[in-house]
Amino acid sequence: MIALPPGSTIGIVGGGQLGRMLAMAAARLGFKSHIYAPEADSPAFEVAAAHTVAAYEDEAQLAAFAKAVDVATYEFENIPVRTVEFLAQQIAVRPGAKALACAQDRLNEKTLARELGAMTAKFQAVDTLAQLEDVLARDFGVPSVLKTRRFGYDGKGQAKIFNATDTKQAWAAMRDAPSILESFVNFRAEVSIIAVRGADGAFAAYDVTENEHRDHILHRSVAPARIAPDVADNAITTARAIAERLDYVGVFAIEYFVVSENDRDTLFVNEMAPRVHNSGHWTIDGAMTSQFEQHIRAVAGWPLGSTELKAAGVEMINLIGNDILTWPDIAAEPGAFFHHYGKKTVRPGRKMGHVNRLLTKRPE
Amino acid sequence: MIALPPGSTIGIVGGGQLGRMLAMAAARLGFKSHIYAPEADSPAFEVAAAHTVAAYEDEAQLAAFAKAVDVATYEFENIPVRTVEFLAQQIAVRPGAKALACAQDRLNEKTLARELGAMTAKFQAVDTLAQLEDVLARDFGVPSVLKTRRFGYDGKGQAKIFNATDTKQAWAAMRDAPSILESFVNFRAEVSIIAVRGADGAFAAYDVTENEHRDHILHRSVAPARIAPDVADNAITTARAIAERLDYVGVFAIEYFVVSENDRDTLFVNEMAPRVHNSGHWTIDGAMTSQFEQHIRAVAGWPLGSTELKAAGVEMINLIGNDILTWPDIAAEPGAFFHHYGKKTVRPGRKMGHVNRLLTKRPE
Repeated sequence: MIALPPGSTIGIVGGGQLGRMLAMAAARLGFKSHIYAPEADSPAFEVAAAHTVAAYEDEAQLAAFAKAVDVATYEFENIPVRTVEFLAQQIAVRPGAKALACAQDRLNEKTLARELGAMTAKFQAVDTLAQLEDVLARDFGVPSVLKTRRFGYDGKGQAKIFNATDTKQAWAAMRDAPSILESFVNFRAEVSIIAVRGADGAFAAYDVTENEHRDHILHRSVAPARIAPDVADNAITTARAIAERLDYVGVFAIEYFVVSENDRDTLFVNEMAPRVHNSGHWTIDGAMTSQFEQHIRAVAGWPLGSTELKAAGVEMINLIGNDILTWPDIAAEPGAFFHHYGKKTVRPGRKMGHVNRLLTKRPE
Repeated sequence: MIALPPGSTIGIVGGGQLGRMLAMAAARLGFKSHIYAPEADSPAFEVAAAHTVAAYEDEAQLAAFAKAVDVATYEFENIPVRTVEFLAQQIAVRPGAKALACAQDRLNEKTLARELGAMTAKFQAVDTLAQLEDVLARDFGVPSVLKTRRFGYDGKGQAKIFNATDTKQAWAAMRDAPSILESFVNFRAEVSIIAVRGADGAFAAYDVTENEHRDHILHRSVAPARIAPDVADNAITTARAIAERLDYVGVFAIEYFVVSENDRDTLFVNEMAPRVHNSGHWTIDGAMTSQFEQHIRAVAGWPLGSTELKAAGVEMINLIGNDILTWPDIAAEPGAFFHHYGKKTVRPGRKMGHVNRLLTKRPE
């Protein structure tokens, strides 16, 4: 493919903080952004040259959007695959519908990971309460976790099952959606890899990131993760294999559980995000190329940028809900890189911003 | 003063690349930007939540702009002082009209620098050809440089005088504008200081930057400058004194000539820019806080950010006119930070973008 020249317009489907940070990275490289999102107060609109407020299913608006942009991407994996397929009839959409369809379904994700030789939790598709009871009555074992196959995020659409009496309630929480039962993984840490594949098939990955969650929402990421070099290499190898299988173009994240047995770490693929990822926000201030610029480079057919760190280590803390009210303290902290997403309303659990800090030592 | 909370709107007068980079820095902190500029295709519009296309003299539009923003600043020192005075009747404008008026006039700038004990070239106001001839006939000496007092930039409005026969032509180049005759300074290097003064009077400065010009336009900046620590301290002391005298709030630059005599460097104040400055663009990728965020912090009444470098040294190369056509090479260079200003038309001498590079060693 031919690299899109500066001055071209990148269409971004989805208008949240990821779209906002993508639009800023695009502007730095001389691109215009056109954001497509259903919410009239989308944070990304404030930094984009153009925007469309319309439903993801509005084909007239999608057609006009496709006409207005030179290439399209998305910042949100819960947009309908049909939206991407529709746009792709008119223009290149990166990553494509195939990657989106895979990443939208936990069953597909885990099946693919296993096919490529990666470890995952034991899993089994379940579509009815009877099937769930049957699977549990046989040899699946507890504790296990029941999850909707689609549209889950930040712990939503999940229920733990410790024993047979939990089954009905867990199933009820799925609201009859096609689901997946997963064995509970007893992990010592959670890590993720932020990687990128270019339109020419080039591949690059950042240092593996270690993640801490609170109430199922990412709280803190720190890079490089405290794992052995060969384990980090495995994370990258798996990420690359997945990207190649999906003809992936752009930045993506793979989340892993780190399982320790006899002092040896093994990585279990947990899930894939076909987009820039919260656990990669540290790259804005801590890496030679941010994940946002990296994604724009891939989408525009540019060479990938350097993924090197600018410091021995980097930390990111999410500002969730009322955390954002501490902004005067963060603003006054020397060396704290403050990011506010411009969202008007504070709600519990809502991602309002984040703060990055460079570390003078590699995390130990 | 009370710090403006994220969500507030920063008004920026002027819509060029400086306004564009200010708007991006503001967005990062959760601010909205409203750009006011006369040119319909201003690069800053593409990253701002709102914009007004109107003349700097249009008081109805200025009044509406003042109503729409919480504080105002400017990115361009050749806006009329009257524009700032008009806005200041309704809202805080930082920096204020006093600083702008001083920086717009080379005579005022140099007079102030001398008052504060800094060195400058010898200078003399001249308003007519007869006066110019008279001054030169007495003891002023050649070579000297005739400059318009106002509205000069990138070498425009300047003429060198080597001997009496140059006088008429030099004066003609001034087009009868009030001018200043300056003795030619035989400098070994040009340096600048990018400094910031907060709304509370706090002061911070980045490492002194060494600048190379080509055809009177900045070509390359590198920090830290290769000057002795006490000389660098002098640059900062002078900058601080000037800022305090002008009740300055925001980022500004002072350009100095480095004059070497008997192996001792002395700094001569050349000029002041009451705004973020091209020789500070390296701070975007190379400093803990960019000059753009630093300016927004000051304007919004926030604490100043850290001015520390992220590397042993940083270099910036301007991309002027056709230089921008090399973007594919820059995009492919590992570790090159590419900035494109989104300008549609390439013209000789036009600043189209820049590239930053981190250095592993301090410049020697």
